[in-house]
Amino acid sequence: MSTAGQVIRCKAAVAWEAGKPLSVEEIEVAPPQKNEVRVKIHFTSLCHTDVYFWEAKGQNPLFPRILGHEAGGVVESVGEGVTDVEPGDHVLPIFTGECKECPHCLSEASNMCDLLRINTERGGMLHDGQTRFSKDGKPIYHFLGTSTFSEYTVVHVGQVAKINPEAPLDKVCVLSCGMSTGFGATVNVAKPKKGGSVAVFGLGAVGLAAAEGARVCEASRIIGIDLNPNRFEEAKKFGCTEFVNPKDHNKAVQEVISEMTGGGVDCSIECTGSTQAMVSAFECVHDGWGVAVLVGVPSRDDSFKTHPIHFLNERTLRGTFFGNYKPLSDIPGVVEKSWNWINSSLILSHSWISTRRSSTCCEGRVCDA
Amino acid sequence: MSTAGQVIRCKAAVAWEAGKPLSVEEIEVAPPQKNEVRVKIHFTSLCHTDVYFWEAKGQNPLFPRILGHEAGGVVESVGEGVTDVEPGDHVLPIFTGECKECPHCLSEASNMCDLLRINTERGGMLHDGQTRFSKDGKPIYHFLGTSTFSEYTVVHVGQVAKINPEAPLDKVCVLSCGMSTGFGATVNVAKPKKGGSVAVFGLGAVGLAAAEGARVCEASRIIGIDLNPNRFEEAKKFGCTEFVNPKDHNKAVQEVISEMTGGGVDCSIECTGSTQAMVSAFECVHDGWGVAVLVGVPSRDDSFKTHPIHFLNERTLRGTFFGNYKPLSDIPGVVEKSWNWINSSLILSHSWISTRRSSTCCEGRVCDA
Repeated sequence: MSTAGQVIRCKAAVAWEAGKPLSVEEIEVAPPQKNEVRVKIHFTSLCHTDVYFWEAKGQNPLFPRILGHEAGGVVESVGEGVTDVEPGDHVLPIFTGECKECPHCLSEASNMCDLLRINTERGGMLHDGQTRFSKDGKPIYHFLGTSTFSEYTVVHVGQVAKINPEAPLDKVCVLSCGMSTGFGATVNVAKPKKGGSVAVFGLGAVGLAAAEGARVCEASRIIGIDLNPNRFEEAKKFGCTEFVNPKDHNKAVQEVISEMTGGGVDCSIECTGSTQAMVSAFECVHDGWGVAVLVGVPSRDDSFKTHPIHFLNERTLRGTFFGNYKPLSDIPGVVEKSWNWINSSLILSHSWISTRRSSTCCEGRVCDA
Repeated sequence: MSTAGQVIRCKAAVAWEAGKPLSVEEIEVAPPQKNEVRVKIHFTSLCHTDVYFWEAKGQNPLFPRILGHEAGGVVESVGEGVTDVEPGDHVLPIFTGECKECPHCLSEASNMCDLLRINTERGGMLHDGQTRFSKDGKPIYHFLGTSTFSEYTVVHVGQVAKINPEAPLDKVCVLSCGMSTGFGATVNVAKPKKGGSVAVFGLGAVGLAAAEGARVCEASRIIGIDLNPNRFEEAKKFGCTEFVNPKDHNKAVQEVISEMTGGGVDCSIECTGSTQAMVSAFECVHDGWGVAVLVGVPSRDDSFKTHPIHFLNERTLRGTFFGNYKPLSDIPGVVEKSWNWINSSLILSHSWISTRRSSTCCEGRVCDA
């Protein structure tokens, strides 16, 4: 029996208050409105960003709320005007969207859509500002436009990537956030050449994905940097060939890397969000051609500081958001490619997903809201 | 009668002491040694860098010295092993060189040759550390390997660009430093698209050349920023379409530019060396695709400081040295192109050269020595 057009009653993990355990209970999910899609969530994973907004420290708290933004599901029904997806389509809801009409969507370089760019403070849908979730008539707010900690959710059509229905949703769900962020930072932005050298700062899930990107680009040296040496063994599976633990040295890590590589690496990718690591990641690239890419999101009041001569000696510093992937246009292709990796058991293993908890990716984009 | 192999007696403007007027007198110029070229200088111009090292404030002074590094001349004789140029060739001596063998010379991206990169502290020739200049037996030091304030000078063969002998040396001599620096920063590094918007910080000669680069790239809006409004009229000849004087506004210049352009310019080029201008130049580019290029060289102790979110929102910051031109490989082609401009009277006019005095380009590369 079709549920289209009807309120669906289903289970969701509701965050009623900051920092209090989520409560799994039955809620109501209203039908999708104009340009909206209702999705049955089959699998969802947990990202540090969910925890960050659940803790709500230093934020304007918005509760009750349904968190969650890394997920895979199937379209249940669509609202007025939706033609890009239809019931039965396999989709990944994504925390940042693509309207396909704004200057960013029309630019080859950008994925920072004016209409659907990540917005951590919005609790309602774009169409009418209202929420589609309720419990006994009391509204429950959305999170990042995705709210995937629910059996059913309502998402703007510009925030669902339609993927190959044969892709395993339990695995590819993590491609909707951190993994694409790290992998894309390397392959889309740093772009190491075959045989080149790459330094990856931070070996959480985002950093592992960045290292995997370097491996796919056939970099010859992939140096993993982390304060936690327990991460090094796992990182070898993602291509890391050498490791530096800053705690093992009396000099700045950029000096250590410069000495290891005869002047610096060709590229670096910063995946921790620490400004100290950002400066090291920038200053450890080779003069003349080095490119450093910032991925990790810092605290609101942090600042990046360096001597301008490091730039003038022909270094490049770039930042990236979601690995520069356009969520609707590019992620289906990422799913296709990573699916091959899944078959080769190289990545998206259980251990990979289990590291997810400690990474940063979209986190902290509050600065941008 | 050939002078090859003989000491030449000629006039030079010698700096005997820091800050004291140059003294024009007769000196001796020894024959070129291995990999060296002796050049008869026909025209030389004055760059702020000459003044900076003549004043020698805050430096390890090296005197007596023959300054000068923007010049055009003709090869008089060559030393052992020189095959790239021969007597009679028209050349531009250049303050930074190209050995064609080191990793930088072999890299497509870099022009920062390991062997012949600018060295402001070296007073002798690379071959034997000795100087080729003397006065009554007393050695006089070289400057930047060029020392063009002399009728004859001796230069490493990797620091002379062989140019078309029909190019007017009195005009193209300025291509050996500041103009190529500014022009190349735009066309080689910022690379604005046709119809794009460009901000140029500082309208000295380097900035005017950067604006000219934007005009050649067919940018539609070229915004010149300078504290001196007397420079605005001249800058229109180099393509500037609008102007901002930071003194006319109560808000930061990056905010002014962002409002003028609906979110920021596509590219900016910083040609002043002020760290405040560098921060403005970076923060005034559009999120998603903006590229800022640093050209001006700051003081030794300055630092560049910004919030990392400006990077994470997909802005790029790059620095450039000598406009990313490889001096021997690229400058002959720049001469060919600019020669067309000379014919169209657009640039290299007397007024252009006269502005040269107040710009910065290679200046301050002491940090790098």
